[in-house]
Amino acid sequence: MPELRKDYILDRWVIIATERAKRPHDFIKESTKKKETSCVFCKGSENLTPNEILRIPNNNNWEVRVIPNKFPAVKLQGDYNIKTHNDFYTFAEAYGSHEVVIETPDKDKQLWDLKAEDMKLIFEVYIKRINELSKIQGIKYVQIFKNHEAAAGTSITHSHSQLVAYEKVPHVVENEVKASKNYQSCPYCSIIQKEKDSFRRCFENNNFIAFCPYGSRFPFEIWIFSKQHLTALQECNLDDLSSIMKQILEKLKKLNAPYNYMIHYSPTKEDNLHFHIEFIPRLSTWAGFEYSGTIINSMPPEDAARFYRGES
Amino acid sequence: MPELRKDYILDRWVIIATERAKRPHDFIKESTKKKETSCVFCKGSENLTPNEILRIPNNNNWEVRVIPNKFPAVKLQGDYNIKTHNDFYTFAEAYGSHEVVIETPDKDKQLWDLKAEDMKLIFEVYIKRINELSKIQGIKYVQIFKNHEAAAGTSITHSHSQLVAYEKVPHVVENEVKASKNYQSCPYCSIIQKEKDSFRRCFENNNFIAFCPYGSRFPFEIWIFSKQHLTALQECNLDDLSSIMKQILEKLKKLNAPYNYMIHYSPTKEDNLHFHIEFIPRLSTWAGFEYSGTIINSMPPEDAARFYRGES
Repeated sequence: MPELRKDYILDRWVIIATERAKRPHDFIKESTKKKETSCVFCKGSENLTPNEILRIPNNNNWEVRVIPNKFPAVKLQGDYNIKTHNDFYTFAEAYGSHEVVIETPDKDKQLWDLKAEDMKLIFEVYIKRINELSKIQGIKYVQIFKNHEAAAGTSITHSHSQLVAYEKVPHVVENEVKASKNYQSCPYCSIIQKEKDSFRRCFENNNFIAFCPYGSRFPFEIWIFSKQHLTALQECNLDDLSSIMKQILEKLKKLNAPYNYMIHYSPTKEDNLHFHIEFIPRLSTWAGFEYSGTIINSMPPEDAARFYRGES
Repeated sequence: MPELRKDYILDRWVIIATERAKRPHDFIKESTKKKETSCVFCKGSENLTPNEILRIPNNNNWEVRVIPNKFPAVKLQGDYNIKTHNDFYTFAEAYGSHEVVIETPDKDKQLWDLKAEDMKLIFEVYIKRINELSKIQGIKYVQIFKNHEAAAGTSITHSHSQLVAYEKVPHVVENEVKASKNYQSCPYCSIIQKEKDSFRRCFENNNFIAFCPYGSRFPFEIWIFSKQHLTALQECNLDDLSSIMKQILEKLKKLNAPYNYMIHYSPTKEDNLHFHIEFIPRLSTWAGFEYSGTIINSMPPEDAARFYRGES
């Protein structure tokens, strides 16, 4: 019997459509690997991506580079205040910084091929950029995300993630903050305690836990939470975080899954949102029903968790 | 300069990313038309789709058929009341009816190839099903939608739409109702008056108007509103509605666009939501940033409207 499930704290509903259930290997995306030619993100092409923001290490043998997005969705120009046109239309200039994090100099490696220590370097770069960009007046949030493959919204195959620092707190993060405030203490701390002993638990180490959320919107959706109540990436043990990321990425590689991840940190210390990372594999396509507000997911999170744990 | 825009009444934000702007013909999706072989939706295969719900006319020369979805997301079984498991997880059995409307017996025709009078017949079928399904206890809404092509979430090429009658009001419709109640009179009536004279106006006839919404989430997104304050499909002049649908579909055919449409009617008479239909062409893919809650759209609605009006 299909089941309608609510997210832990948000007013977000998903139908777990068991009638359509498939086994994990039915989701494996066929490889369309073409031999990649050298691209503008490759070592040796640095002059083709001007106005470099950061490279680590700061020499020709860089491992990670940050550059401006060539087609920025936001720009550090104009006025970030929200205005009204004709007393009717609400808008602002799209103010902020849109940057690309090149995760490796090697075009033949995807993030899931890198070592945990490479992942740690990427997190260190994220932290540097959050620290810098948060100082800019008008910037309310630095949204960090990764799009892997066309089905997850990127046309560039060279492994990269992005950040958009801008004048808004992303709607989903804002809703998480609002919903959390309805509880006397952090609801995510309780969720972690519940999911730790559930069939949805996937991986765990000293500082982090990963599980498939009860109301998973996507087949193989998986969330990473800090086990302690932390609110920022800067507070995290990056060795443990990189290690659990690597565990997830290895499994996504087995599915050859297009995916996104999004880092959710607390917009302000007072907002007190529990730090987490959401992974959404993109092995299904949202249709008209999903865009009306109820999501159909054909992979029960309990089954997805078995796959992550290596039991299926 | 890219612009951050808010939806007319919802807390939904879009960045109109002019830096990425393309001309309408750049969006045209390459045709991947393969010769379709006869399928289970074709005339002559009726016995392969048992438990037929409706056919019009009710003979072998049917034009429209309604059948149960073979892989239903909801079922008329069990208990639709929302329950809690372990005082923590909120769920219900996914209760309702999931049906497929076969829009034509001819596998070689898509909806955009049909005449306005064929479209009218489809609307009449939608009305019959809404009337029937709304009588069932526990059904709160009949969500009608169409998915055209794989990129819009369907694997079946024979032209069809779907309806899910279930125990919830879809979240987007619910938010529209809530937001409308913040105004002294229907905000959509004001929106229509504003957009009638705007660069976003596309088509208009005696009873309907179509425009690209100010905060369009998708390239070529277009909405149809009844010019009078109507709340239900049953109240609509179907000749005029079919005629404006046909005008939109002809343009989408020029783009060869995968698309969804969703019918938004008022859940109850008291909710008083202004009847409308939303079309979302699926020529772009949402990425990690969009799933954080802010949408990037590279086609300003003012440019999309020029395309619909035949000016570009």
